[in-house]
Amino acid sequence: MFSSAGDILRCERARLDPERDFSSAGDILRCERARLDPERDFSSAGDILRCERARLDPERVFSSADEVVLKFEDGRVRARNVLYDTLPVVVHGNGPTKLQINYLGNYIPNIWTFETGCTACNEGLLPLEGLQESEYPLVLIGIFIQKPTPFVTVFFERFLKLQYPKNRLKLFIHNQEAHHESQVSLFLKDYGSLYQDVRVSGPEEEMDTAASRNLAIDVCRKDEGCDYFFTLDIEVVLKNENTLKILIEQNLPFVAPMITRAGRLWSNFWGALSAEGYYARSEDYVDIVQGRRVGVWNVPYVSSVYLLKASLLRSELTDFDLFNSDILDPDMAFCHNIRKQGVFMFVTNMQTFGRIVSTETYQTSHLHNDLWQIFENPVDWQERYIHENYTYIMSDKLIETPCPDVYWFPIFSDVACDHIVEEMEHFGKWSGGGNTDVRIQGGYENVPTIDIHMNQINFEKEWHKFLLEYIAPITEKMYPGYYTKCATPLNFVVRYKPDEQPLLAPHHDASTFTVNIALNSKEVDYQGGGCRFLRYDCSIEATRKGWTLMHPGRLTHYHEGLPTTGGVRYIAVSFVDP
Amino acid sequence: MFSSAGDILRCERARLDPERDFSSAGDILRCERARLDPERDFSSAGDILRCERARLDPERVFSSADEVVLKFEDGRVRARNVLYDTLPVVVHGNGPTKLQINYLGNYIPNIWTFETGCTACNEGLLPLEGLQESEYPLVLIGIFIQKPTPFVTVFFERFLKLQYPKNRLKLFIHNQEAHHESQVSLFLKDYGSLYQDVRVSGPEEEMDTAASRNLAIDVCRKDEGCDYFFTLDIEVVLKNENTLKILIEQNLPFVAPMITRAGRLWSNFWGALSAEGYYARSEDYVDIVQGRRVGVWNVPYVSSVYLLKASLLRSELTDFDLFNSDILDPDMAFCHNIRKQGVFMFVTNMQTFGRIVSTETYQTSHLHNDLWQIFENPVDWQERYIHENYTYIMSDKLIETPCPDVYWFPIFSDVACDHIVEEMEHFGKWSGGGNTDVRIQGGYENVPTIDIHMNQINFEKEWHKFLLEYIAPITEKMYPGYYTKCATPLNFVVRYKPDEQPLLAPHHDASTFTVNIALNSKEVDYQGGGCRFLRYDCSIEATRKGWTLMHPGRLTHYHEGLPTTGGVRYIAVSFVDP
Repeated sequence: MFSSAGDILRCERARLDPERDFSSAGDILRCERARLDPERDFSSAGDILRCERARLDPERVFSSADEVVLKFEDGRVRARNVLYDTLPVVVHGNGPTKLQINYLGNYIPNIWTFETGCTACNEGLLPLEGLQESEYPLVLIGIFIQKPTPFVTVFFERFLKLQYPKNRLKLFIHNQEAHHESQVSLFLKDYGSLYQDVRVSGPEEEMDTAASRNLAIDVCRKDEGCDYFFTLDIEVVLKNENTLKILIEQNLPFVAPMITRAGRLWSNFWGALSAEGYYARSEDYVDIVQGRRVGVWNVPYVSSVYLLKASLLRSELTDFDLFNSDILDPDMAFCHNIRKQGVFMFVTNMQTFGRIVSTETYQTSHLHNDLWQIFENPVDWQERYIHENYTYIMSDKLIETPCPDVYWFPIFSDVACDHIVEEMEHFGKWSGGGNTDVRIQGGYENVPTIDIHMNQINFEKEWHKFLLEYIAPITEKMYPGYYTKCATPLNFVVRYKPDEQPLLAPHHDASTFTVNIALNSKEVDYQGGGCRFLRYDCSIEATRKGWTLMHPGRLTHYHEGLPTTGGVRYIAVSFVDP
Repeated sequence: MFSSAGDILRCERARLDPERDFSSAGDILRCERARLDPERDFSSAGDILRCERARLDPERVFSSADEVVLKFEDGRVRARNVLYDTLPVVVHGNGPTKLQINYLGNYIPNIWTFETGCTACNEGLLPLEGLQESEYPLVLIGIFIQKPTPFVTVFFERFLKLQYPKNRLKLFIHNQEAHHESQVSLFLKDYGSLYQDVRVSGPEEEMDTAASRNLAIDVCRKDEGCDYFFTLDIEVVLKNENTLKILIEQNLPFVAPMITRAGRLWSNFWGALSAEGYYARSEDYVDIVQGRRVGVWNVPYVSSVYLLKASLLRSELTDFDLFNSDILDPDMAFCHNIRKQGVFMFVTNMQTFGRIVSTETYQTSHLHNDLWQIFENPVDWQERYIHENYTYIMSDKLIETPCPDVYWFPIFSDVACDHIVEEMEHFGKWSGGGNTDVRIQGGYENVPTIDIHMNQINFEKEWHKFLLEYIAPITEKMYPGYYTKCATPLNFVVRYKPDEQPLLAPHHDASTFTVNIALNSKEVDYQGGGCRFLRYDCSIEATRKGWTLMHPGRLTHYHEGLPTTGGVRYIAVSFVDP
């Protein structure tokens, strides 16, 4: 029986099933009729609440939307009129209250309760399992690059891993940013041919956001073979490789994966709209974003990533200009138009799908600008630059002790090492290795190296954050009772070369402890190298790219840099707590 | 044959030998005659140089004293007239040139040469070996305390060890200083009866320096049994326990042991006099003081410690008032009078005898004022306060390593420990052990102890000097490559008591390395106690009085003070290089 507000979801799915006879099941029919009947005001979808049979309320009360709230009872949900303190059996909405009706419909009467979770979410799915690759729906994926965005390379790397037959995918890539052209063309050069079709519009076409999105959708609309249109903005981090399959299996006209900004309440959906049509926070928004309420939610606004059934584009959504509005931004215009056409926008948080990067502080002045994203996009930064084993080093006891009180553990990914070295060589102003050094306090360096300081490439704050986030916890574990804020006046990359500076004479560091990260590979990039602690007569010669040494800086750990006998060796060094 | 200037020495010895017939040996006779003949001007002693037969010089030249210098040839020494560039065979002197004649006589013709050293010094000695104790000459020792002087307790401890039958010694102690009365009386109470006789004059007698010295000498003069008068000023550090015997064996009317101020050119003799009779530096002074010329030297001034043959007091030196002069200080007056009576004053540096302490900065405001003498009298300070094994810890490998990178070695004598503890308890202002501490920067102490800071007893500079002199060398040996100036904003003595503060919770120190000195004895003064390094799970429980721990202050060496379960435990702590 489809008897309640939750039926909106059920209906949407049912509507997509061509085999199903909509006329035979009263509630679906009622619901679907509401949708199919152009004459009927869409707010009548709320009428299904009339079926709420749980309890007859003697008073039927007309109230305004914000006087009606959800009342969670044991295993069911009712509307509560807070003005009159009643529990109405019928909730009727017109005009602007439609969205409130949708909201209530996500729960009443038992679509989602605290006891059961979502009861309707797994009904009427469209399994892809068992299909031949060739039988997979054809999806046009629109990828939109509208501003300089960090981790674009990672986006494409990850996009390649999307679990879907690539010959059932067509790509429409719109890139407004010259900064990203090389990344797009590199991706297409290497992998474009894997896809059934690729269409690119670059910055030279000067197409704006609305135009490009309208165009992308129209390409699908006009392509009879196109079953779905999938929008994927470049800032979306689709961690879940099955996202596209999961969304198709949702069997809904419009469905989006919930993605959030890591550690924030920001997401790609709105739970409510303000009277002016802008963002408003629904009562359940935080619970949904934080995963305390899991389900498939009927919401008034979705952006960045969503799946649209192409058949809709040829019925309710035939208007080419879905993204244009006199007053609204393209994304809001689109949602407005979708809503106006009576298409419900669902967002699912039944799985975790991923997140969205922030473009706010992204600057393009460096070679590898993503290195600077540790503050704005810390999760993406970590995935890109921190060694894949880093998070396991404590639990899996991966920290080695090659010499007394010296710790050795993986910290940087290969990419991080490469980017830092390339960034430094790109900058290029290596010190002369003399004792006079205007970069440091006092201007005199006892044990000079050929190096570039992190602050010379404006990387000081980011490096400090890296130390705080990734080194300090290990320091505090391995040297119990020692707490550090990683005061570091000196962070630098050293270059060792046989014909330049091959080694560093025994010395102490101006630090309580020192971090010494190998940035390239012994025997691959250089021969020789390593670090010897004279007092313990103990050396680490088999250096490992991306691994760091952490050792006391002075008193006990007098040390020297062993000669690099061939190639070029790079290390990143921090003198922590001087 | 006694044929030359060196014969003055030989003569002086010969003169003391009652058995010897002076009339039979021409040169001795000539020399002794010169002395015994009251009519004869003493400068004629220089006449022995007439015997210089080495080479006949055609020119006989009369020159002034400063135009005659020593000319060292192979195995012999001649006078050189620098004005005429001649080598005279006869040097004659009158009046003020007497002293210059004496100086030349220390060398010419071969008394002392670079090739042979002193050729006359070991002739005519008076061996005491084989004598019964009762046969030892009777010596009156005059001990003079004229001003507040450091290490007086040590003086008496050392005086007790003087190798000589105590029943052949009489003491005349003159003490002008109330500050030292307790030390004098304690010595006499414990040991006075060991000596044949003791006579003391205290500050209440208000006797001045000259009077007391005249009196002391007169006591010997009038005592027929008195063979020698030995002066010993309180500031003399007679390291050589055989000094008195060695001096008697010198068999000279007047002889002093050369003593110097440690590390300085200051000594108890003058090599020359200025025209006004004050100090002048002889050409050979520095070489004699520094031991590059060793011998028995005829000099114009001696002070502080010397031996006088009593028979002289009853012949040449019968004048009671030897120490008085209208214009000269008592010491200079005495030498003047001695010289006037034709008695040569010899000083020997054939052995090392000791040194003299400086009284310059000595203050009497503390309980154990000697603790503050590390700057002014560093050698005495070390002997008193540094552990007797300290100087052997490197060569004899006495440094223990009870825990990783923790060193443990003897540093303080028992006396040092006792004095520091007593000084602190005398001061008495122990901190409350709370977190609020106005004595330190910031006013907040994370890990408070019941303590007194060194600067509260004005001991900060001295403590720093101690660290620099005695800790830093060990630090730099054990932590090679680490150099320290011992920057120490925090030095203090901690008191642990079961009912006060028995222990200290785990903590790091605000130091690069920490010095932790046990100031009293486990099982004797307290039970329990010790230090545990948590990260190594390593404890030092069997603490040793006067031994210090030296360990890295932070990062690796998280540590706690183990509970003192009985008694009172004291430690001195320095946080070095914060």
